[in-house]
Amino acid sequence: VLPSDYSDINCSVARTLEAVGERWSALLLRETFLGTRRFDDFQRNLGISRNVLSTRLARFVELGILKRVQYQERPARFEYRLDQAGKDLFPMLMAMTAWGDKYAPTADGPPRSFSHRDCGGSIDAVHLRCEKCGQDVGLRDVWGEAGPGAQSAPGTFAHAA
Amino acid sequence: VLPSDYSDINCSVARTLEAVGERWSALLLRETFLGTRRFDDFQRNLGISRNVLSTRLARFVELGILKRVQYQERPARFEYRLDQAGKDLFPMLMAMTAWGDKYAPTADGPPRSFSHRDCGGSIDAVHLRCEKCGQDVGLRDVWGEAGPGAQSAPGTFAHAA
Repeated sequence: VLPSDYSDINCSVARTLEAVGERWSALLLRETFLGTRRFDDFQRNLGISRNVLSTRLARFVELGILKRVQYQERPARFEYRLDQAGKDLFPMLMAMTAWGDKYAPTADGPPRSFSHRDCGGSIDAVHLRCEKCGQDVGLRDVWGEAGPGAQSAPGTFAHAA
Repeated sequence: VLPSDYSDINCSVARTLEAVGERWSALLLRETFLGTRRFDDFQRNLGISRNVLSTRLARFVELGILKRVQYQERPARFEYRLDQAGKDLFPMLMAMTAWGDKYAPTADGPPRSFSHRDCGGSIDAVHLRCEKCGQDVGLRDVWGEAGPGAQSAPGTFAHAA
């Protein structure tokens, strides 16, 4: 029987999946990296129930992936921003994006494309550096925008299709 | 309501999770990267039902993650080896390992440690290159072995603990 979580498995990959592999968690993380910060925006963009959203956000705060920051005083309002453990998921997300772009492409190309903020070069997602100027890139150095496949029908797995 | 898969979501991260995010799939992938190739070995190491294992292996073959290769003639016997789409998951797995090592560590250190086959240097998992000689590394260049935390009790999430 599959355990309800991976906590008895001494494997770092398994524990990363435990934190972010659940579907709503993954989609929530994606929203955060796309710039969404506020509860109502998460709720609208994901079509998720407020209950489930609250639970996932609280868990991400507990894990240090997001931090809850007050942005208004009266009435008190809070938003969610990437905290260090969340920022450190950037290499994983870039690797997943690259794999999905290659093996489950849309007909028109990647839904999002990434470039180096400084020089506009393409990003080598495997080595996280700029293909043009050779500089290492992190979260702050990468500019993401809608790519050629953004409006395409969802892709299928190339190999399986 | 959460759809039963991500196929209607035009996102490469979501589609990568669709392929490898399911728990048994992730653990199966891990086994493959650790060198397991044969049905009975997967079955024993994972404690998974033969039915579930068969389904997951067939799906991985369909996706080009694994290939089924005959290794004996009489009786005909087959094993599963990483195919190109599987090898291309290496950057993602290294990124997940690094995150898990950092944010859900065991008391004694990483369960596995990685080094550069050529020079023995440590691996920079974010940029996939050797920290000693600076060379880019791929799957074939990295040597993984039991790390200091291999025998530890499973780790907890550092931030949440």
